[in-house]
Amino acid sequence: MALSTQPYKGARDFYPEDKRLQKYIFGKLRSVVEQFGYEEYDAPIIEPLELYLTKTSEEIVNEQTYAFEDRGGRQVVIRPEMTPTVSRMVAARRQELAYPLRWYSIPNLWRYERPQHGRLREHWQLNVDIFGVEDIVAEQEIIMLADAIFKSFGAKPDMYTIKLNSRKFINYVLGDYLSLKPEQAAKMCRLIDHMHRLDRADFTSQADAICVGSKAGTVEKMLSVLDAGSFDSLPPALRDHPGLAELQKTMSLLHEAGVTNVVFDVTLMRGFDYYTDLVFELFDTHPDNNRAIMGGGRYDGLVALFGVEPLPTVGFGLGDVTLTDFLKIHELLPKLPAETDLYVAVVGDVLQLAQKAIAELRSKRLNLSVDLTGRKLDKQLSMADKKGLRYVLIIGQQEISTGQFTLKDLQTGKEAKLTLDQIAEEITKSRHSEL
Amino acid sequence: MALSTQPYKGARDFYPEDKRLQKYIFGKLRSVVEQFGYEEYDAPIIEPLELYLTKTSEEIVNEQTYAFEDRGGRQVVIRPEMTPTVSRMVAARRQELAYPLRWYSIPNLWRYERPQHGRLREHWQLNVDIFGVEDIVAEQEIIMLADAIFKSFGAKPDMYTIKLNSRKFINYVLGDYLSLKPEQAAKMCRLIDHMHRLDRADFTSQADAICVGSKAGTVEKMLSVLDAGSFDSLPPALRDHPGLAELQKTMSLLHEAGVTNVVFDVTLMRGFDYYTDLVFELFDTHPDNNRAIMGGGRYDGLVALFGVEPLPTVGFGLGDVTLTDFLKIHELLPKLPAETDLYVAVVGDVLQLAQKAIAELRSKRLNLSVDLTGRKLDKQLSMADKKGLRYVLIIGQQEISTGQFTLKDLQTGKEAKLTLDQIAEEITKSRHSEL
Repeated sequence: MALSTQPYKGARDFYPEDKRLQKYIFGKLRSVVEQFGYEEYDAPIIEPLELYLTKTSEEIVNEQTYAFEDRGGRQVVIRPEMTPTVSRMVAARRQELAYPLRWYSIPNLWRYERPQHGRLREHWQLNVDIFGVEDIVAEQEIIMLADAIFKSFGAKPDMYTIKLNSRKFINYVLGDYLSLKPEQAAKMCRLIDHMHRLDRADFTSQADAICVGSKAGTVEKMLSVLDAGSFDSLPPALRDHPGLAELQKTMSLLHEAGVTNVVFDVTLMRGFDYYTDLVFELFDTHPDNNRAIMGGGRYDGLVALFGVEPLPTVGFGLGDVTLTDFLKIHELLPKLPAETDLYVAVVGDVLQLAQKAIAELRSKRLNLSVDLTGRKLDKQLSMADKKGLRYVLIIGQQEISTGQFTLKDLQTGKEAKLTLDQIAEEITKSRHSEL
Repeated sequence: MALSTQPYKGARDFYPEDKRLQKYIFGKLRSVVEQFGYEEYDAPIIEPLELYLTKTSEEIVNEQTYAFEDRGGRQVVIRPEMTPTVSRMVAARRQELAYPLRWYSIPNLWRYERPQHGRLREHWQLNVDIFGVEDIVAEQEIIMLADAIFKSFGAKPDMYTIKLNSRKFINYVLGDYLSLKPEQAAKMCRLIDHMHRLDRADFTSQADAICVGSKAGTVEKMLSVLDAGSFDSLPPALRDHPGLAELQKTMSLLHEAGVTNVVFDVTLMRGFDYYTDLVFELFDTHPDNNRAIMGGGRYDGLVALFGVEPLPTVGFGLGDVTLTDFLKIHELLPKLPAETDLYVAVVGDVLQLAQKAIAELRSKRLNLSVDLTGRKLDKQLSMADKKGLRYVLIIGQQEISTGQFTLKDLQTGKEAKLTLDQIAEEITKSRHSEL
C-alpha cells in the first residue's frame, strides 16, 4: 500500500509559498525585537519532563505534552512552551550574564490538543524576556515592544487592545477578600481563565461548586469584581490595593509612550502557574477573530527553581498561527515576490557553454534557476510562468557568441537583448521597485 | 531539590553568541542555494513512523529513532532525516509542481546515538534536492552548488575533496561480479560503509563471515576492487561498466565548470538504502578532521512510494555540526559583531523623558539596549562592556534639553556630543566598516 502524503495531524507542511510568508513574518519580528536590544538564543526541542512539573499548568503537563521515555530510560518531552527552557539557560549562567538581560527566541512548540481554528498541535512562538529589572519599566518596555511589532506590520491601534491585570490583586481578591482556600483559589483562577468560553449560567454553577463550604454570597461577591469594567467600578474596599496602583502606573507610562489602546481587564488570568504580578494579553478587536494573539507577564520565581539567586523577569509569547490569522483578517499581508530572479531557458545543446554566463550572474548576487531538460523553448517559458517567475533569460549559441542575451519579461511580454551587466542592473532595479 | 540547568544529553543550548554563529552560517547557506534557484520549505518535526520503515537504513530506524506513541495511539518519530519528508511533500503535489523543482530546507534532525566529536543527538542539516532531471547535469549542479557553499565561506579547494561513486556499479560488482546473494550484498554494503573505521583484519574477517557459502577467493576478489585508487587500477573486466562511464562524465563536467577536487572512491557507500545511482561525499582533508562533511546522491525511487508517478531526484545533506567543525579547524569563522548597536546609559530620573530620543534612533534602524536600573553611570558603562558592546549613548537631563547626546566609544575611550542624526550616521558607518 502506498504511504500517506499527509503531514502529522494538527501540524503543518510549509510549501515554499508558506515558508516565504513565515520568513517575512519572522524577519519583521527579529528586526523589531533587535531594535529593542534583544539577542536571539535557542535550545533543544527535547527537554527533561521534570522541567515542567512544578510551574507549567497541570492541564498542559498531564494532558497535552508529547511526553515519552527515550532509549536510555529518561522521561522527556517535546517542549510545550519556552519559558522553563529560557529560565534553565539563564540559571546556568546566572553569575556571568550582564543584566538587564534581553533575550528572544522563535522556538517550535508542541501540545497534544484537538486541532481547531487558530490552534494547532505545533506552532512557532516568538518568546521575548527581560531579566533583572524589578521596576514596572520592564513591563512598559515589553508591552511597547509588542506594540511596536504590531505597528511594524502596519496594524492600527483600533485593530487590537492590550489587556492588563494583576495577579497580586487577583490573589488578594480570591484569598483575602473572598476567603477562598489556596486550592479553591487555584481552581477559580483556571475557571476565570476559561470564563469567556462559558455562558453565565455554566460559569456560575462551576464557581458555586468550587465555593462549596465558603460563606453564602461568595460567588456574587466575586462576580461584582469580575464584572467591573474599570478601576472605578470595583468595590470600594478593593480600590486601594497596591497591585492596582502598579497596574495604573504601567498604563500611564504606556500612554505617555504612545501606546494608548491599553485597558484593565480583571478577568485576564493567563494559563501558566508561574506568573507573580502583572499579566497582559493583546486581543484582536476584529469581530470574526476576537481572541488573544500575544500574552505574557512577570514571573519572578522561575530562575530560582534551579538553585540560584532569584531574578525578576517579564516576558511574552506570540504564536505564528494566531499572528498570521490576525494579519490575514486585517489584510496586512503583502504579496511576496519569489526569491528566484531569473529562469534560464537554454536553447540547443549549449548548457555547458552557458555555465560561465550563469556563474557570472550569480556572482552579481542574482538568483537563477536553470532549465536542465533541453526541451523546447515554449515549454521552458511556460514552466517559468508556472513557477510564478517574471523574468526569463534565454541562452542559445548566438547569445553565447555575441555576449548579448535575451531577457524576456513574462508580465509585459517584452524582450530585450542585453549584456550580463545590463541584465544584473535591470533585475536589481525591478527587485527594489517590488519592495 | 533544584532542577538541573543542563540541556538534554547530546543536544545543544544556543546562547546568543552560539546563535549568532548559527545565523551567520545559515545566512550564507540560504544565500548560495537561492542563487541556484532553490526555494525553502519546511515540515513538522514529528512524522509517522511508517515513513521510515521501507527506505531509511535499518540501523537508523531500529536503533536510533526517537520513536513513541502519541496520546491518540499513533506511532510517530522525531524525524531522523529529511529525505522521506520532502519526498512525501512532493508526492502530495506531484501534478501541480513545476519541474525541474528545486527545494531546500534546514531542518533539525534527531538520532539516538552515543554523542561523540562531530556527532550529537540532534543537528540542523541543510537539505538540497532537485526533482525531475534524469540526466547527470542534475548531479553536476548539485555538486557545483555544494562546492559554491564551501567557497562562499572562504574554503580553498585543497581543504576538501569531493568523492564520487556509483551504486549501480557497486551493485554490479557485488551481485554479478562476486555473485553475492541480495542479503549478502546488502550486508556487504553496510560493512564497506564502515570500512574506514575498521582495521584490515577486522574488515576481512567480517567480510569472510558475510561470504560464507560463496566461492573461495570472493573476499580477495572484492578487495582487488575496493583497493583500486583509480578507474585504471580496477580489474579490466569491470572497467567498461556503464555506471563508471556516467561517473567519469560527471567528473569531467565538474572539471569543466571549475570544480577540480573531485575523485573516484569505490568504497564510498552512503548509509541510506534509497540511493539508486551516483553517490558523493565532501571530505575534509585536514589531518585532524578527516571525515565526511556533506553527502548525497541520486534516489529515483522514493517519491513513487506514495503511489504517484516516479520522479528522478538528486540531493544532499550538510549538517551544521560537521560544517562548523570544518570552518573552525580551517579558521574560516569571522568574529561576528553583536546585533545591538548602542547601549543606552540613563543618568538621573529621566528614563521617560528619554523615550522619545530612543524611539527616534530605533526608527532610524538602530538597535538600542536601554539600562533600566537607574544605577550609577560607571556601573552602566561596565555593563555595556560586559555585554561586548562598543558604543554607549549617555542620556541625562542636559542631553535631553540641548538635543546633543554623548556618544562614548568604549574601544577608543573617545566621547563626542552629537545630534541623533549624527549618531545614526556614525553608527551606520561603523557597522559597515565591520563587515
